[in-house]
Amino acid sequence: MARPRKPIRSDLAWSTVDRIVVRGKDLPGEIIGRLNLGDMAFLELTGRTPGAAESKIFNAMVVTLVEHGVTPSALAARLTYLGAPEAMQAAVAAGLCGLGSVFVGSTEGCARMLAEALPDPKSSADLAALAKRVTAETRRIPGLGHPLHKPVDPRAVRLFELARETGHYGKYCELIQAIGAEKKLPVNATGAIAALACELGFDWKLCRGLGVMARAVGLVGHLLEESRQPLAEEVWLRTEEEASEHLKPKK
Amino acid sequence: MARPRKPIRSDLAWSTVDRIVVRGKDLPGEIIGRLNLGDMAFLELTGRTPGAAESKIFNAMVVTLVEHGVTPSALAARLTYLGAPEAMQAAVAAGLCGLGSVFVGSTEGCARMLAEALPDPKSSADLAALAKRVTAETRRIPGLGHPLHKPVDPRAVRLFELARETGHYGKYCELIQAIGAEKKLPVNATGAIAALACELGFDWKLCRGLGVMARAVGLVGHLLEESRQPLAEEVWLRTEEEASEHLKPKK
Amino acid sequence: MARPRKPIRSDLAWSTVDRIVVRGKDLPGEIIGRLNLGDMAFLELTGRTPGAAESKIFNAMVVTLVEHGVTPSALAARLTYLGAPEAMQAAVAAGLCGLGSVFVGSTEGCARMLAEALPDPKSSADLAALAKRVTAETRRIPGLGHPLHKPVDPRAVRLFELARETGHYGKYCELIQAIGAEKKLPVNATGAIAALACELGFDWKLCRGLGVMARAVGLVGHLLEESRQPLAEEVWLRTEEEASEHLKPKK
Amino acid sequence: MARPRKPIRSDLAWSTVDRIVVRGKDLPGEIIGRLNLGDMAFLELTGRTPGAAESKIFNAMVVTLVEHGVTPSALAARLTYLGAPEAMQAAVAAGLCGLGSVFVGSTEGCARMLAEALPDPKSSADLAALAKRVTAETRRIPGLGHPLHKPVDPRAVRLFELARETGHYGKYCELIQAIGAEKKLPVNATGAIAALACELGFDWKLCRGLGVMARAVGLVGHLLEESRQPLAEEVWLRTEEEASEHLKPKK
Repeated sequence: MARPRKPIRSDLAWSTVDRIVVRGKDLPGEIIGRLNLGDMAFLELTGRTPGAAESKIFNAMVVTLVEHGVTPSALAARLTYLGAPEAMQAAVAAGLCGLGSVFVGSTEGCARMLAEALPDPKSSADLAALAKRVTAETRRIPGLGHPLHKPVDPRAVRLFELARETGHYGKYCELIQAIGAEKKLPVNATGAIAALACELGFDWKLCRGLGVMARAVGLVGHLLEESRQPLAEEVWLRTEEEASEHLKPKK
Repeated sequence: MARPRKPIRSDLAWSTVDRIVVRGKDLPGEIIGRLNLGDMAFLELTGRTPGAAESKIFNAMVVTLVEHGVTPSALAARLTYLGAPEAMQAAVAAGLCGLGSVFVGSTEGCARMLAEALPDPKSSADLAALAKRVTAETRRIPGLGHPLHKPVDPRAVRLFELARETGHYGKYCELIQAIGAEKKLPVNATGAIAALACELGFDWKLCRGLGVMARAVGLVGHLLEESRQPLAEEVWLRTEEEASEHLKPKK
Repeated sequence: MARPRKPIRSDLAWSTVDRIVVRGKDLPGEIIGRLNLGDMAFLELTGRTPGAAESKIFNAMVVTLVEHGVTPSALAARLTYLGAPEAMQAAVAAGLCGLGSVFVGSTEGCARMLAEALPDPKSSADLAALAKRVTAETRRIPGLGHPLHKPVDPRAVRLFELARETGHYGKYCELIQAIGAEKKLPVNATGAIAALACELGFDWKLCRGLGVMARAVGLVGHLLEESRQPLAEEVWLRTEEEASEHLKPKK
Repeated sequence: MARPRKPIRSDLAWSTVDRIVVRGKDLPGEIIGRLNLGDMAFLELTGRTPGAAESKIFNAMVVTLVEHGVTPSALAARLTYLGAPEAMQAAVAAGLCGLGSVFVGSTEGCARMLAEALPDPKSSADLAALAKRVTAETRRIPGLGHPLHKPVDPRAVRLFELARETGHYGKYCELIQAIGAEKKLPVNATGAIAALACELGFDWKLCRGLGVMARAVGLVGHLLEESRQPLAEEVWLRTEEEASEHLKPKK
């Protein structure tokens, strides 16, 4: 007996001879020249064009994640480019592969914690009590503290300031701040972004995607610099020399 | 004799306890809330903040490249997500790996052709003669014609319109249009983007990077849709069934 | 205060002007021409050359995982190759990216379950009682049953036969079979490989690696076939057409 | 008018309820327990089981490529694992992405040079004259010399020895040696592997695939070592510190 076929459908885009439509909007007429790259990302993820306040806060969130200096991810991309400079897409891909549980996962984990603690942001929850409960129940709270930026993470400060300006400082922002107060740790950039993702009604699963798209931008920047001012070969040679030195016969 | 050490340097970013600086700008004070994602990409690539006109044309260029429906790249990302939904960064990476010579390479090739034909855009070149020469010398001209969008590619039309509005319709735009006229083929979206990249003074090697960052945004959109309205499993099952049918013993 | 430096060490290989040594063995003298690819993998993973019986069972395990027809992973690799045929390493990489929790994860999960149930294979455990306990405590037991191969998975049958022949049919093989009997489901190929990995003393975290290396071999085979007898473009075109049909204006 | 459908076909494998057949051979009955991993790769690539001599030389070729110490590719894989230890398939993928023109490309380039110089190995070509011509016509000859291994690459010496033993020392081996003599440079490991690939009748496009599959094995070894004896974090921290030091304000 043959397997029954399921339909194959995507609602993201279509084109005909003279039209290209993305998320229901005419690409040349309604998108190109009207939306910036952050707004376009918002449209891709939500199916609608952001309002001015949403545009401001969403662009601020992703812009925060673009560039963090020579991270493991940037270094992996540069080392890949060293071997395959003709395939820079693969070097960006290599850099993205490491955006997993250790570095980017905390945004996701924090958004999940907030969304599960407060499934309905319109409910009249006692946020102080909620913060106490979350703190008691969660073994390792993501989105708080920072190894370098002390006593506060200046990106989180700025993001919350913008949240207030744009009318996005709601219960999720309050909750993560209350949790931070409870733990006597400041909210960091990933905590602020996680709270804002909840304020915008995003699924917590999407948070990793925000980091991935932002870092893709940053990785292209790293590869451009690597093509002009390389560092990967020197990192490799030093590492190789030191790593195997103890194995080599003494002269 | 020991290998002499070379320095390891990157000029992209630095941080201290209370500061985070990207490309010479204070991240919280001068970037977050001030630059949109396209402007941030411009800063990463050029080291300076775009002016209003540059911001408009650059955002238009990258926004054009974000979403093209179910491309091979989007399909590869979705099939990867089917096997490893817990690692969506790897699914985006898989999607990026295919942005090579066949689909994204034409922007790069077109920008290279234009930059090599006209190394100095301030020179008083005879563009019509140049177009004739390039057409005669180039076996397969990238950036012209489109299998579906005929007689014109509406994205290119719109991009050239914006180029005029923003003062970026210069000699590279003229040259690609003259080459198109010579070949009796309209300039397509990749041709327009390549010409605009030259107008902005970008290295042609950077053009692939524009496509890569834009598609990373689009791929996150595809994976979000795949998580809600999957198609990859059905594509796989149909393909698997048809592909091996001829090998199976007749019943 | 400066961060104290930690040493950087790898014990895998070293070379000097006239010597290349891998895992303590002279590459030209003791490896090339003496070890087959499976034995070399065993050496990489364990630091020692397998005996004849170990070589037979280990090669059998990885060989089982090489080729499964047009899987989502193979399809992702082929679609990537369609866009970037000049970078076939990236196409293999794209194919590997999807070897996550859904398809390859079951070997890992099964090995973990077995290793945790029986930390010391030399202990005189009551395997029937253990199987009952594991079955009761585990929500979804990996390594049992198969959607297509019924009532038995012929690869598992063959692997257990080889395990007996080579003296590797020990307590982990017995335990997974007892668990299968408890659930009235036959052990599948991933269950057998997981049990054998435990018999060989491998860390369960390594099981995913066995699948990854084996599939890399298979993916190269798929890309060679794709270069001669392509299917990716047709899969893409059909998918694209069907996926967006419902969005297009009726003619 | 609808696009005419093309068939979708793959000849690699098929399965039914009780059978699994790969490349025309019964997987449990004719492959598992009979072929080692290198033989299985040979079967995937050629559609036939290697004879004993072919098995020996082919396994020797791929085994040579498995482990080269802490290469840029291994380092990229380890840095990726640092960020996403839960997705080791993505770390292997990241490591493979850099196997491009710079390091692995030389085997491919050498095999292509040999195959194009001598399209028919049965022709009675004057190999000395051919070597002179190739040397004169080729700007940068791949497969010769080595930055470290001087005056000879011991892997190439061993591979040619095995080629003689197994009856695979034919005209392509002679030709690359003659080219080396012409340039007064010894043939290196990639040159020997390229010549042997030609002796086996392989398409030069396949040579990159040999390196890719072999390195996938080696990368799993590196990730296992990284999980037990990490070096990636230290490499990252040292690099990050040195790279941005010049940007930071003096205290």
